[in-house]
Amino acid sequence: MKRTILILGSLCLGVALSAQSGIISTRPANDQSGKVLTMEETIMSRTLSPENIYSSWNDRSELIIRKDGKWQTYDITSGALSEMARHAAPSVQAVTKGQSLYLIDREGNETPVAVSENSQITYGQYASRNEFGIDGGIFWAPDSSKVAFYRKDETKVTTFPLLDITTRTGSLKEIKYPMAGMDSENVQLGIYDLASGKTTYAKVDDFGYDQYLTNISWSPDGTKIFIQVLDRSQKHMKLNMYCAADGSFIRTILTEDNDRYIEPQNPIWFIKESDNLFIYRTDNRDGYRNLYLCDLDGNVCRLTATDADVEYIANDGKHVWFTSAEVSPIENHLFRVSVKVPKSAATKGISAVKIGKPERLTKAEGWHNIAMSPDCRYYTDSWSSLSVPGVTDLCTSDGKVIRNLLTAEDPTLDYAYTEISLGTVKSADGKYDNYYRLIKPKDFDPAKKYPVIVYVYGGPHSQMVQNTFLGLLRRWEMHMAQRGYLVYVQDNRGTSNRGAEFEKAIHGQCGQAEMADQIEGVKMLMELPYVDKDRIGVHGWSYGGFMTISLITNYPDIFKVGVAGGPVIDWKWYEVMYGERYMDHPERNPEGYAKTSLINKAKDLKGKLLICQGAIDPVVVWEHSLSFIRECIKNNVQVDYFPYPCAEHNVMGKDRVHLHDKITMYFEDYL
Amino acid sequence: MKRTILILGSLCLGVALSAQSGIISTRPANDQSGKVLTMEETIMSRTLSPENIYSSWNDRSELIIRKDGKWQTYDITSGALSEMARHAAPSVQAVTKGQSLYLIDREGNETPVAVSENSQITYGQYASRNEFGIDGGIFWAPDSSKVAFYRKDETKVTTFPLLDITTRTGSLKEIKYPMAGMDSENVQLGIYDLASGKTTYAKVDDFGYDQYLTNISWSPDGTKIFIQVLDRSQKHMKLNMYCAADGSFIRTILTEDNDRYIEPQNPIWFIKESDNLFIYRTDNRDGYRNLYLCDLDGNVCRLTATDADVEYIANDGKHVWFTSAEVSPIENHLFRVSVKVPKSAATKGISAVKIGKPERLTKAEGWHNIAMSPDCRYYTDSWSSLSVPGVTDLCTSDGKVIRNLLTAEDPTLDYAYTEISLGTVKSADGKYDNYYRLIKPKDFDPAKKYPVIVYVYGGPHSQMVQNTFLGLLRRWEMHMAQRGYLVYVQDNRGTSNRGAEFEKAIHGQCGQAEMADQIEGVKMLMELPYVDKDRIGVHGWSYGGFMTISLITNYPDIFKVGVAGGPVIDWKWYEVMYGERYMDHPERNPEGYAKTSLINKAKDLKGKLLICQGAIDPVVVWEHSLSFIRECIKNNVQVDYFPYPCAEHNVMGKDRVHLHDKITMYFEDYL
Repeated sequence: MKRTILILGSLCLGVALSAQSGIISTRPANDQSGKVLTMEETIMSRTLSPENIYSSWNDRSELIIRKDGKWQTYDITSGALSEMARHAAPSVQAVTKGQSLYLIDREGNETPVAVSENSQITYGQYASRNEFGIDGGIFWAPDSSKVAFYRKDETKVTTFPLLDITTRTGSLKEIKYPMAGMDSENVQLGIYDLASGKTTYAKVDDFGYDQYLTNISWSPDGTKIFIQVLDRSQKHMKLNMYCAADGSFIRTILTEDNDRYIEPQNPIWFIKESDNLFIYRTDNRDGYRNLYLCDLDGNVCRLTATDADVEYIANDGKHVWFTSAEVSPIENHLFRVSVKVPKSAATKGISAVKIGKPERLTKAEGWHNIAMSPDCRYYTDSWSSLSVPGVTDLCTSDGKVIRNLLTAEDPTLDYAYTEISLGTVKSADGKYDNYYRLIKPKDFDPAKKYPVIVYVYGGPHSQMVQNTFLGLLRRWEMHMAQRGYLVYVQDNRGTSNRGAEFEKAIHGQCGQAEMADQIEGVKMLMELPYVDKDRIGVHGWSYGGFMTISLITNYPDIFKVGVAGGPVIDWKWYEVMYGERYMDHPERNPEGYAKTSLINKAKDLKGKLLICQGAIDPVVVWEHSLSFIRECIKNNVQVDYFPYPCAEHNVMGKDRVHLHDKITMYFEDYL
Repeated sequence: MKRTILILGSLCLGVALSAQSGIISTRPANDQSGKVLTMEETIMSRTLSPENIYSSWNDRSELIIRKDGKWQTYDITSGALSEMARHAAPSVQAVTKGQSLYLIDREGNETPVAVSENSQITYGQYASRNEFGIDGGIFWAPDSSKVAFYRKDETKVTTFPLLDITTRTGSLKEIKYPMAGMDSENVQLGIYDLASGKTTYAKVDDFGYDQYLTNISWSPDGTKIFIQVLDRSQKHMKLNMYCAADGSFIRTILTEDNDRYIEPQNPIWFIKESDNLFIYRTDNRDGYRNLYLCDLDGNVCRLTATDADVEYIANDGKHVWFTSAEVSPIENHLFRVSVKVPKSAATKGISAVKIGKPERLTKAEGWHNIAMSPDCRYYTDSWSSLSVPGVTDLCTSDGKVIRNLLTAEDPTLDYAYTEISLGTVKSADGKYDNYYRLIKPKDFDPAKKYPVIVYVYGGPHSQMVQNTFLGLLRRWEMHMAQRGYLVYVQDNRGTSNRGAEFEKAIHGQCGQAEMADQIEGVKMLMELPYVDKDRIGVHGWSYGGFMTISLITNYPDIFKVGVAGGPVIDWKWYEVMYGERYMDHPERNPEGYAKTSLINKAKDLKGKLLICQGAIDPVVVWEHSLSFIRECIKNNVQVDYFPYPCAEHNVMGKDRVHLHDKITMYFEDYL
C-alpha cells in the first residue's frame, strides 16, 4: 500500500490560480481499497497524525526529549540520551486556591497574598475572558522579589444559569458572563513584595472602570511594570510604565489609536542585557503585525521589513529571531535580524542601534514550528508540508541543521485515498487570494457529479488552510470524502496571518465579508463539472456555526443542508471583550448588530438546518441557539436541533464521536 | 358534500370483538375530495368541533345561556331569553396576592389573613401539586363566617433551575420541585374566623411532616371541618373531623388502607338538610369508584349498585344523581337513586335511611355531560356519540326532555373523509376488553398496505376512547389519516373509568402492563391485511412520551419510528405525589424503578426516535429527556431531539403548530 507522494500542478478544473500563490499539491490516487476512517478515529488525535517527537528546552538550554515514557536530556553533540538531572523546585510558588492567591514555600507553608472578599472577586487568575493574549493572572518579577497579579471584580457582571443534570435532583451552575453592551469586569493589577509582605496596586487611571489591563511585562531589573492599557471600546491603547515599588504611574511610552480596534496581544520583550531597549509587536503602524524596536522614551523603529505578519521567537542581544508569513501566508519560516547595540543605547535609545537585514533560516517549503534554546544557540525545527508528513531537525541558531531527530512515515497509507489539494480563490472585493483546501471523494471519477460539504470557521484568529501535512485536514473531512463527498475549506477576510486590512474588513459587520468570500469559493466549485450544484451543504462550529446559519439563510438557493454547532446568533449575546472588538458597542452600531443578527434571518431559512449545542456551553451560551429556534418556531420554519447535555463549547470525547455520527447522518439523510 | 351517518357493524377485517362490548361504528366513505386539515387547524379547538351551547346554572337555579356575546337568563317554560339581572358581588372575597392571603371587601379594603414569612411558604393556594383532586387552597364555610386555607411550606423541597431566554442576558427561573423519594412539602390547614380576626390551625397529627391534607369539606352548619388525611406512602387514609372553632381533632370517621395506594379524589357531600348523613366516593371498598352513604359515626352503606365507576352529580335530600360507566365504559349515563331520610336519621344515622334502586335517566347511546340546577329540578344534558355531533337537551330531573336547546350539524363535511371506528381488544392478561379508535386513511383501499401511527397516552386518569362524536379524535390524527396513515389509539390497564383493579395493575411498574396491552392492539393491527407491518410508528406526550420510548426500546423490532414529547424517563425524577402513588418510594421499590427506567433502555434503541420537550417544563423537568439523550450519547446511539424554548409541559399556540408539523415531517421522513 506504499504510495509515492508528489507535489504537482493543478488537477482542479476551471480554477484560476494566481502565479505567485498558486500552490496546488496533490497526491495521485492509487490504492482505493484502504480503510474508511471510523467515527472513533475521526476524533482520535493519533489517527492520521504523523509520528511526533516531544522536545523542549529547559532554562539551562538543555534539550529535553520524551522517550520511553520519560523526559531525558539530549546531548547535542553526540545525540545520546541520559537521565535528567533533578533540579530543585523553586523556593516559593504563587498558587491560586479558589479565588485567592497564596505563596507556598518548599515546605508547603502558605502565605496569603490576596484573599477574596466574596464570590465576585478573584485574585491571581486570568482576566478579560482570556482575550488580549491573557492566559494567566500571576506575573513574577525577573528576580522573584515581587509578584504581580490580577484582581478581577465581577460584581457588575450578570450571571447566566446552566443546568447540571448529573446531580440527583438537577442543579444550577451559574457563570459570570458579561454580554456586549452590558456592565463588565473591573480589573486591577496588584504588586506583592515578598520581603515586606505588602501589596500595592498599579495606579491605572486611563479609561475608567472597565478598562483592560493587558500584556503585563516587567523590566529586567524588576523595578518597573508595563501595562498595555486599553479602553472599553478597544480603540485607544497606552503602553504605560509604572513603578513596581509603589505602583505609581511613571509615563506613557507609546499609544495606539484606531477607528476600528487595537488588539494588543503580546507583552514587550527587552533586548538582552538592556534595560532600555525592547521589542514591541503591533499591526497598527504598517498594516501588518510587525516587530518594532523601541526605547523607554517612546522612540520606535521597525525591525521586520516585509509586509507580512510575524511572530517573535527570541533575542540574544545580537539577533532577533522571528517567524514570518512573508514566503507565503500558508507557510511559516524562521528569520533572524541582527541588532548592533552599543553601550550608549542605554542613554541614546534606539537611535544608537544598527539593525541589519532579515535573513531566512528555514528553507524547505512548509510550516516550521521553532523552539529556541534560552541561550539562543540552538533551536529545533518541526515542520511538515502537504507532502511531507513531519520532520524534526536540531539546528544551530544561524540555521544550520546539525541532526535530523525524526522523519515521520506517512500515516495515511492504510486508509482509502482521497486527494487533497490547496489553492486560492479571489476574495469578493478582488484584493486578496484566499486559500482553500479541497478533498476529493474516494474513487473520484471526474465524469461523475458529487455533493459538496463546505466546512467553515471563518472567524478572527483562525487559519484553516496551511501548507502542513494534509493541509490541516480534519479527520472528519476525510471520512466524508471517503463516503463520497467533496469537502471544501477556505479562509476568508477576517482570518489571521494576512495583515490588518484583511482582518479588520469584518469590523462592525461580522459575517458579511466572510460570507461574500466563502460564496466566491462556492461559485468556483459550482463551475467544476464534477460538482453537483444542487447538493451543497455547509457545516461549522462556534464562529463557523454563525457562518453556517448566516450562509444558509442569506443564500437559501445555494445551500441545501447545514449543520451549525454552538453558533453565535446575535452578537449582543456574546461577551464584551471579543464581541465589542469586532462589533463595537450595540448602542454605537445598531445597524451592524441588526444586519448580522440571525434572529432576523430565521424566517429566510429554506434548507434543512441542524443546530448542535453543548448544553452547558459557557462560551456561546444557550441563549443564542435557543433564541434562534424560538424565532423559527414563531415563523413556523422547521429547523432541527440536538443538545449535548454535559458538553461545554467544544463537544469532546464520546460526545464528539456521537456528534460526528449525527452530523454525518444528517448530510446522508438530507443532502 | 352532505353525507349520511350510519351506525353499523364491522368494516375491520380480522378483529375479534366481544359480543357485549363490540361497538364498531363507522361512517361510509363517499366524498373524498374534501379539504385536508391544515397544521393550524390541527390545533384550533373550533375545527371539527360541533356547534356548542354555553349554559350554566346560577345559584338561584336559573339557567344562563351565552348568546350574542352575553350571558342571558333562559325561561325554562317559554324558552325566552332575557337580560340577566345583576346580583350584588359577595360582601367579602378571599384573594391570594403573591404568597399571602387577604380578605377584600366590596370597597376594596384589604384585611391580611395570612402573610407569607418567606418565599418558601405560601398561603391560600393549591397544595400537593394539585393531586388528590386539589384545585385550590381557599375553603369558605357555608355561612361565610370562616374561611379555611392551605399553608404550604416548601422549605425542604429542592429547586430546579429553568432558563428564561426572553430577557436581555438570559435569566434564571427556579421552581420548587419535590422529586420522588426526596424531601417534600409540609401542608397545614388554617381556619380564619372573620368576626374575631383570629386564625387557628387544624390539629392534624396522623402521619408526620409530609402527610397530605386532602379534600377539605365543611359541615353544613359550619362548625366542623373534614380532612381526608393521607400518609406520604398513600397507603393509609383517615377521614377526620375537626372543630372549626379551635381546630381540635374530634374523631376519625372512617379509614382506608391499601397495599398499593389510596387516592381520595372528592370532598364529602352532605345529604340536603342533614348534618349527619353524607355521601362519600371511594374505589377502596368494592373495586369500583362507588358512592357510599355514611354518617358521622362512621357507618357506611353502598349507594350505587353496579360494578362501574360513578361520578357524583347532586342530591336534594330525596334523590342522589350520579353518572356511571355501567352501560359501557365508553358511555356516560345519568342515574338517580332515591334516599328516604326520616327525621330520626340525625340520631340513628344511615340505619334509618331507605335506599332505592338506581334508575337510568339518559337513554341515547353516547356520552352525556350533565349540569344539574342547584334546586335539583332541572338539568341540561349535553351529549354526543360517534355518529351524533352534539345535542343539548333541557330536562326535568326525573329524566324527561322538556326541550331541545341545540342539535349540532356535522362539522366534518368539508373535509376529506377518513373512517373512524371504535372496537375492543383483549388486555394482555386476558381479563379486560380494551377500547380502541382506528382511523383509516383517506381514499382507503383494503387491497393496499398502509403505515400505522399508534398515538398513545396510557397513563392514569385518562380515557382516550369514548363514544363521543369522532370518538375523542385529535385533529392531528385526522390530518395523518388524510396523509395516508392508519392511526390507532387504545386505552390500556392503568387508565380510568374501569375500576380499581384495572387501574392499579400498573402499580410499582409503570409502563409494563400498559405496554403489554398496547402490544396486544398492535398485534391485532399486524394481522390486518392492509397494515404494513414494517412501518409502525408510535407517538405520545408526557406519560405518552414515556410510553413511546418504553415501546420503541422494549419492542425495537415492531416500532420503526417514535416521537416522544415531554417524556418521563425515570420516575425518580418525577414528583412525590403522583410518582410515589404509582411507583412507591424509590427505596421501597428499587426493582420497579430500575425496570421502568428508560435510562437503562437507551442502549436498546434501534429505530428513529425524536424527543420534543418544552424547555421550561415545570411538570416533567428537563432532567428527564436530557438525561436520556445523555445516555444515548454514552452508548453511541443516535436519537433526535427538539426543545421548545419558551414552552412549558404542554406545547401550545404557535409552538404547537410547529410541533405538529415537526412530528408529521419526522414520520414522513422516516416511517
